Amino acid sequence: MRIAFQGEPGAFSEAAALRFAPGAEVVACRSFEDVFAAVAEGRTTQGILPMENSIGGSIHRNYDLLVEHELPIVGEVELPIEHCLLGRPGMKTSDVKVVYSHPQALAQCERYLERMTGIEIVAVYDTAGGAKMVAEGTRADAAAVASRRAAELFGLGILAESIQDYAVNITRFALVGRTPAPDSDATKTSLVFALQSKPGALFKALSGFALRDINMTKLESRPLRGRPWEYMFYVDVDAARQSHECGRAITHLGEFAQWVRTLGSYRAWRADPASGDSGLR
Amino acid sequence: MRIAFQGEPGAFSEAAALRFAPGAEVVACRSFEDVFAAVAEGRTTQGILPMENSIGGSIHRNYDLLVEHELPIVGEVELPIEHCLLGRPGMKTSDVKVVYSHPQALAQCERYLERMTGIEIVAVYDTAGGAKMVAEGTRADAAAVASRRAAELFGLGILAESIQDYAVNITRFALVGRTPAPDSDATKTSLVFALQSKPGALFKALSGFALRDINMTKLESRPLRGRPWEYMFYVDVDAARQSHECGRAITHLGEFAQWVRTLGSYRAWRADPASGDSGLR
Repeated sequence: MRIAFQGEPGAFSEAAALRFAPGAEVVACRSFEDVFAAVAEGRTTQGILPMENSIGGSIHRNYDLLVEHELPIVGEVELPIEHCLLGRPGMKTSDVKVVYSHPQALAQCERYLERMTGIEIVAVYDTAGGAKMVAEGTRADAAAVASRRAAELFGLGILAESIQDYAVNITRFALVGRTPAPDSDATKTSLVFALQSKPGALFKALSGFALRDINMTKLESRPLRGRPWEYMFYVDVDAARQSHECGRAITHLGEFAQWVRTLGSYRAWRADPASGDSGLR
Repeated sequence: MRIAFQGEPGAFSEAAALRFAPGAEVVACRSFEDVFAAVAEGRTTQGILPMENSIGGSIHRNYDLLVEHELPIVGEVELPIEHCLLGRPGMKTSDVKVVYSHPQALAQCERYLERMTGIEIVAVYDTAGGAKMVAEGTRADAAAVASRRAAELFGLGILAESIQDYAVNITRFALVGRTPAPDSDATKTSLVFALQSKPGALFKALSGFALRDINMTKLESRPLRGRPWEYMFYVDVDAARQSHECGRAITHLGEFAQWVRTLGSYRAWRADPASGDSGLR
């Protein structure tokens, strides 16, 4: 198994790939588009994409890319996120003048960073990339917000640990593949559909799930480009597409939506923040 | 009337403020937080905030800030967005090596910028701020994606006009004030509420509007921080809060939600892309 991820070695996406498939070969990519390309061209068997963080919210770019490409979601994995402040060995927190990290990581540590007065914050494309800049750059007063593993990989010291604003901080990743996951494995289904803007449109579209007591775990709206104030909706439900109830609800949805696409029906592993362990959802 | 906006003079927020109230005094602020502070402290009568672009989607930061602060929404205005590529007078498109702009503006011109091979793209905090950097910076090969008005203000030339990927590109702005707008003026209501994660929760919450044929024009979900995979929902409806039907629907919503807050009931001016004119929605 070869899994493509976006970022440098030490990125949280890499850790999520290894949580999904311990022992898998992981392949670093520059961008999310490159992850899709690696899978589509057969260079890897899967790609892993961060979809949502429990504090920062959705990574909309990846929702958009799922629709632009044809690759099905074949699995989902949650990863508890612990951010550390990393600097060169021997450095102290009071020495820090500039902090590098991904905008989402910076947002998740907003309160901690606000207390570090007089520092400059610089957004970079990846948390581990920020750690690499600290290790290899010219500035001795630079630090990065990144994972414990990034500290090990780049030979950095941990100036402070668990600096995220909320102790429970989880990122949900989707695995994409070239062919759909086996139906027998599925516990969850992701759908995307477009609605006309008129009274009750969303209510009618969702009724097929609600009336069958199918739990909807996620609803995200995104603009239909070129059609102002009309939307696509992304929905996750806790049911396999092949189940009788879910199949009927999707058929019902199809009657009310302009179009419906199933992004995948797959198995989801959830993070258990209490034990640090994972379990099947 | 004094209206606070985020960005440099020439920003689209400033243009939206003047569209809402021609002749108003406009006050430039560094951040969205500063816009809220200017209104809360009485330095301005209103503040203007971009909420959503018809191509890029919601500006989630401002949804979050509306909940963190107590200022009501008192009006809404739509502004058609035309992006231009600006450079120093006499410069040609082929001279450009670096382009500055706000990430949302860069995203809205993605296809145009992709065709400019070999250029560096640099995200800055504001479109007009990027234009200012071109005018006052040291690089003669820099250009900015910004408004026609920014070109005039900073003495720049227009290298290319209407470079956005979609001809119809509209941003919706909210005006916040210290006291609610008069009920008699209202045509629209914005609400935010939290739901427990269980089957049918959103369906039941929205049913009060759907069953009364009240049009919902916007639904946005945002994470409840510290409670993974639970959400707040922002909803806009085409109805005044004081109308009998809308009042009943909000009462109904209150029975199913953990909490509900009305962000405002106000008049909305919409952009008419065909005429360039605005009208009451």
